[in-house]
Amino acid sequence: MVGLGPGDPALLATMALEALRACEVIVGYTTYVGLISKELLACKEVLSTGMRRELDRAVAAVDRAAQGRDVVVVSSGDAGVYAMAGLVLECVDRKGLFAEIECRIVPGIPALCAAAALLGAPLMHDFASISLSDLLTPWELIEQRLEAAAGADFVIVLYNPKSRRRTDQLARALTIIGRHRDGSTPVGIVRRAYRPDQSAMVGRLDEVNPDDVDMTTICLAGNSRTEQLGEWMVTPRGYFEKYELK
Amino acid sequence: MVGLGPGDPALLATMALEALRACEVIVGYTTYVGLISKELLACKEVLSTGMRRELDRAVAAVDRAAQGRDVVVVSSGDAGVYAMAGLVLECVDRKGLFAEIECRIVPGIPALCAAAALLGAPLMHDFASISLSDLLTPWELIEQRLEAAAGADFVIVLYNPKSRRRTDQLARALTIIGRHRDGSTPVGIVRRAYRPDQSAMVGRLDEVNPDDVDMTTICLAGNSRTEQLGEWMVTPRGYFEKYELK
Repeated sequence: MVGLGPGDPALLATMALEALRACEVIVGYTTYVGLISKELLACKEVLSTGMRRELDRAVAAVDRAAQGRDVVVVSSGDAGVYAMAGLVLECVDRKGLFAEIECRIVPGIPALCAAAALLGAPLMHDFASISLSDLLTPWELIEQRLEAAAGADFVIVLYNPKSRRRTDQLARALTIIGRHRDGSTPVGIVRRAYRPDQSAMVGRLDEVNPDDVDMTTICLAGNSRTEQLGEWMVTPRGYFEKYELK
Repeated sequence: MVGLGPGDPALLATMALEALRACEVIVGYTTYVGLISKELLACKEVLSTGMRRELDRAVAAVDRAAQGRDVVVVSSGDAGVYAMAGLVLECVDRKGLFAEIECRIVPGIPALCAAAALLGAPLMHDFASISLSDLLTPWELIEQRLEAAAGADFVIVLYNPKSRRRTDQLARALTIIGRHRDGSTPVGIVRRAYRPDQSAMVGRLDEVNPDDVDMTTICLAGNSRTEQLGEWMVTPRGYFEKYELK
């Protein structure tokens, strides 16, 4: 299971590249397979499927691995953050194949770090990552997590803030966060980080425009200490409360 | 500001490598500078200092950048996760140098993803990252965050679980988590991920041995759904509650 990072080949580490070079089969969501260079895909079996076909992909990968083939399942970002690594391990377990299949996870740069790097340094202090997708998680639990994270002053990273079907959940999430934070709290919105047409902007919590957000967006809401410094979003760790600038 | 990833050069992306190659000055904590190859350090000014000298390093870097030099400040993992990116931006701001200094953050693989990859897939669902260091954060706030994250069933990543001075905080953190989780909840302990003598183990929440933990360790406590599958720690996203395995 290999994480491709945000998409820019310059952010792909050698370990991931070598796994892609060495394997016989590449399995992934069509968009993510499209991030891989044609040279790497050449002379391999490539199985790409659309959204919500995660289980099909995992089963196809495990079946081929059980036949002795060297298979890479790709995810964007890190393979272990809201991605395919867990589902593949679950399939290997349910099929009772841990003795036959050697599993390995190659970490990548997760979307939250890619987004944060374009915004500045919003994740310098404790943070919570929450997916707003209620496809597999009850919305009540998502709200409970938003409430808990906002109440304990975590920086909050929102994955999957919107889809074609789900359009109002970001506003509901920001309302919950807004009950615990000043309206001036910086919120970062990053679309297509490190891909063509990327955009990154920092605004105020009470002025977020849901139209700036789509399926490829990561939103980061600051904690009570997060500031906008120049064009950057920064959560201080508190050095300047303890030490003086010389 | 460049994140070196966990330490293995095979997990360093080209963008970080190019920044290190091109720069004139490298600034970093001694241990992290030691992760950089001698070839890359050759013919450069290298400023490395010990622990707790973060502010000195940031100031030295900003002063040199203000003189027009190309400076890289290195962190391990991702430069923006409990690392140097924020402090450097704060220094540039306090010195009023945003017009003179062009800042850029190159993301890296954070320690939490490196640790997760060695354990399996513990971060497949919402997670909270909490540093147990009370050097710059009141312990009361750390406890409040532990309580909130455990109560809302987040997977919990613990950074800085121990230091020479702080030896009892991990036990206190696990006690708080244990009030909300079964004693059989999987906990992963990863030391020196992707460096020589790495170790990764999965155990039960009620059986964690604080002696297995040191300053270079990341601990991950599962949520109520996290399981041990084979030798792996996996947090299911819930596909098998909705779909059937063919």
